[in-house]
Amino acid sequence: MILDILNATPGWAAQRDAAGLDEMAVAQIMEEATKLAEEVLKPVGDTADAQHCRVENGRVITPEGYKEAYQTLAENGWILADMDPDFGGMGLPIPLVLAANMPFEGAAQPFLMASGSSRAGSHLLAERAPELAAEWCPKVAEGAWTITICISEPDAGSDVGRIRTKATLNDDGSYAISGTKCWISFGDHDMAARIGHLCLARTGTLEEGTRGLSLFLVPNDEGIFVERIEEKLGLAGSPTCVLRFEGAKGTLIGEPGRGLSQLFTMIELMRLQVGGQGAGLAQECARLARSYAQDRKQGGSPKASPVPIIQHPDVQRQLLALDAQAAIATALMFEASVSVQAGKAGDADMTTYAAFLLPLAKTFCGEGASESASGAIQVLGGAGYTREWPAERYYRDARILTIYEGTTGMQGQDFLIRRVLNDERKGLKLFADRVRASEAGVALRVLERLEALTDQIDGQDMSKVMAAADGYLRAGWCAVSAYLAERLVAQGGDLAEAGRFWLATVEARMGVAEAQVAYGLS
Amino acid sequence: MILDILNATPGWAAQRDAAGLDEMAVAQIMEEATKLAEEVLKPVGDTADAQHCRVENGRVITPEGYKEAYQTLAENGWILADMDPDFGGMGLPIPLVLAANMPFEGAAQPFLMASGSSRAGSHLLAERAPELAAEWCPKVAEGAWTITICISEPDAGSDVGRIRTKATLNDDGSYAISGTKCWISFGDHDMAARIGHLCLARTGTLEEGTRGLSLFLVPNDEGIFVERIEEKLGLAGSPTCVLRFEGAKGTLIGEPGRGLSQLFTMIELMRLQVGGQGAGLAQECARLARSYAQDRKQGGSPKASPVPIIQHPDVQRQLLALDAQAAIATALMFEASVSVQAGKAGDADMTTYAAFLLPLAKTFCGEGASESASGAIQVLGGAGYTREWPAERYYRDARILTIYEGTTGMQGQDFLIRRVLNDERKGLKLFADRVRASEAGVALRVLERLEALTDQIDGQDMSKVMAAADGYLRAGWCAVSAYLAERLVAQGGDLAEAGRFWLATVEARMGVAEAQVAYGLS
Repeated sequence: MILDILNATPGWAAQRDAAGLDEMAVAQIMEEATKLAEEVLKPVGDTADAQHCRVENGRVITPEGYKEAYQTLAENGWILADMDPDFGGMGLPIPLVLAANMPFEGAAQPFLMASGSSRAGSHLLAERAPELAAEWCPKVAEGAWTITICISEPDAGSDVGRIRTKATLNDDGSYAISGTKCWISFGDHDMAARIGHLCLARTGTLEEGTRGLSLFLVPNDEGIFVERIEEKLGLAGSPTCVLRFEGAKGTLIGEPGRGLSQLFTMIELMRLQVGGQGAGLAQECARLARSYAQDRKQGGSPKASPVPIIQHPDVQRQLLALDAQAAIATALMFEASVSVQAGKAGDADMTTYAAFLLPLAKTFCGEGASESASGAIQVLGGAGYTREWPAERYYRDARILTIYEGTTGMQGQDFLIRRVLNDERKGLKLFADRVRASEAGVALRVLERLEALTDQIDGQDMSKVMAAADGYLRAGWCAVSAYLAERLVAQGGDLAEAGRFWLATVEARMGVAEAQVAYGLS
Repeated sequence: MILDILNATPGWAAQRDAAGLDEMAVAQIMEEATKLAEEVLKPVGDTADAQHCRVENGRVITPEGYKEAYQTLAENGWILADMDPDFGGMGLPIPLVLAANMPFEGAAQPFLMASGSSRAGSHLLAERAPELAAEWCPKVAEGAWTITICISEPDAGSDVGRIRTKATLNDDGSYAISGTKCWISFGDHDMAARIGHLCLARTGTLEEGTRGLSLFLVPNDEGIFVERIEEKLGLAGSPTCVLRFEGAKGTLIGEPGRGLSQLFTMIELMRLQVGGQGAGLAQECARLARSYAQDRKQGGSPKASPVPIIQHPDVQRQLLALDAQAAIATALMFEASVSVQAGKAGDADMTTYAAFLLPLAKTFCGEGASESASGAIQVLGGAGYTREWPAERYYRDARILTIYEGTTGMQGQDFLIRRVLNDERKGLKLFADRVRASEAGVALRVLERLEALTDQIDGQDMSKVMAAADGYLRAGWCAVSAYLAERLVAQGGDLAEAGRFWLATVEARMGVAEAQVAYGLS
């Protein structure tokens, strides 16, 4: 299913060829990834949820098997799979890395957060600090060192302008970092020897807001302490740390006062990764529900043997909804990642198109994963509510996706204000060109309604625009998902059925988004 | 809020008068209930989730404070509050009992399941087995004994016709019950001295299906063993037992072979209770999110102090969505419970109307509670995902509501097939009369679409009807919720704003339900 959708994504074949791969090589890579997910990651994902992480003598202890699984992931080249071999990578195109990560995420999403931030951090170093990259990336690739991102503070979440962590210049040109950072995934652990924290800290005054912030790489060699790890709804296998920096030694990345702009590529990669988490979870939920429904027997005439519940029309409807959710999320992730990859290769339009798609990918793969987990629980019934089956874990794990790496509220503003209104609708126009070039009847109708909605919002007071942003984000999703669903229909087979299921209600759902926007503007 | 909505429910004032109560007495009862929820139940609800229930030496041990809280609930008359004083009750009308239970459910939904099944079971005894009722109800009312409902078995969930638990006549006229029952809430515990199990068991042959089933009251004096309690997503404070009956002594209720029909009133009460759980949770989620948003400061100009997040337009939208969800769920529960109460007083139409409303109440208060918990988590952001705040517990607890006491799939079939198509649309017509008698413009338009949809489905093949049932249930909810929302608008103030928010999208949501039905029929 994953490869069928990837292969149908415009632009992918050229990227695959450019990487010197053919269909067979790609299929083999996916097969190996799926095997790794099954054999190495799934057992770790299952036990980690029960064991949790814990703090002992000021250090985080990860669940059984984590260290070994992390080494296996590294040995198989997955940690920096899309980076250059110079940095210890395999030079794979991003869409393929994303494809391979989908079974990983379905097996052990919390565990994968360690390699996810390490990868995003390595890309940042490669772009912005070549010397640090030369030192760090090969170590990261071999699983010896990891990297985290330290932005949030107790009083500065989405509101980074209020960051208080202080950076003071030392005599040797390094900086002393002091302050408290929170929500640091794998901020400490015992899987690797050294952790580098990409830490946003203040070199300027508080009044300067975000312009007083600089970015540092701060290794955990000294002066960094674990205050606590959070007890959470889910993600028990990912230690979410509060870290106290006390004069920890950091190296400045880029210019002072330009910390925030250093983060952009990394934020893009993290959002892409969150979308991949959602798509991977949605796929796993659909698979679990279908396999349960094939095995579980109930109902039918009391005089005959009970029938597998998959024979009941309402169960079929539920399974189809799960398939559609998984297929659409997967298609969206490939549409977005092919664009990111093309942008990296120098196509500025594709960077713009990717920026248009990413808030949708982040939000709706996240919401889709939660809905899928809820849907899987519903198919399993009482059993789904128990810890005997992993659906309840997926339900708990998935709920973070619309919160971290920018809440849905932030994504809505990013999409409507930055990507559409303030960017002369460039991303929207690129999308519209694609729809108009396809033979997509439903998608075209929904697109035209999106364009009309954009006209309605454009020029309104900012407070009304902000009140309409969530509805507009959903309208954008109706248009983009309709376009992707038509592509699934064109593919035939099971994917076509999933696509038709999605298309059956998408125009009506556009109506809900329009009504929500109208309310926001009223 | 609760009383404002109750007082605006048609038929309530007459029921209140008939019970010899005035507005002031009702307000005083609610005040006491709210105080009890805050002071006694909330602390128990909070600790129970962390402690869980456990099995020791074959008996279930409940969390700290449970026994005392249960006794307090009993001393205040709440366990059988709507039953006659002869049975140890207070004779309160059902809608008022439901109103009082809303803060209880918000505080400690899992704990409340013990009194919930005891109450439903007592009603059943009072109706069907007066001698047993005379013995049991006063004991239940004083918190000395409790009652459970034992229907499901490992291979017979929704599919009761396959129940295998066997009942064999003893020489003394009692029955020996043997078999395994699962999903028994408070199937064992240490809060009261004796537990009576209302147990569906087979007196006939397997081939007779449901017609071979009889109902028994089986006290836990001997021959009943706890096999295990389930580890669950939520409801950690409610021990869900698998019970093994080994020749346990039971008393037959009603005639042999008529077991299922004995359960109808009880099922009605349990569905009403599940709806009340959902409404209570939704209210609590809305309250929590609003109070957090008033306290938590973030954003605004970096040169000024951060502003409470309630000032951000998108947060206001989220809070309004939570208020609307809570208000609509509450209104629905009063609409349904006033009808149940009127039916009990002899109005057959109201029994029909209640049967039409109950699948909606069960389903959409349940889904609404899950959405509300998810919405509260979103408003709290990262904090909402941690165990420092109860939103994540509500999210876990609420997820059971659309599963137990009849899944959404069962409710959809009950609603469309039994309540609408096979009952000559009597319930729908009663609802339509109400809408047409009101001045409800939106509700009237949605109703007309529901009637047209009914015509479309009527007469189709059963497999298509079943595939369309979920969509039809949602269409029914659009119509009923529009009617209730218009009533909120008419009330003015905050409730009106919540009502207008709901109405803003309800016609569009009806479009989604219609599209879903069309797909099911295709």
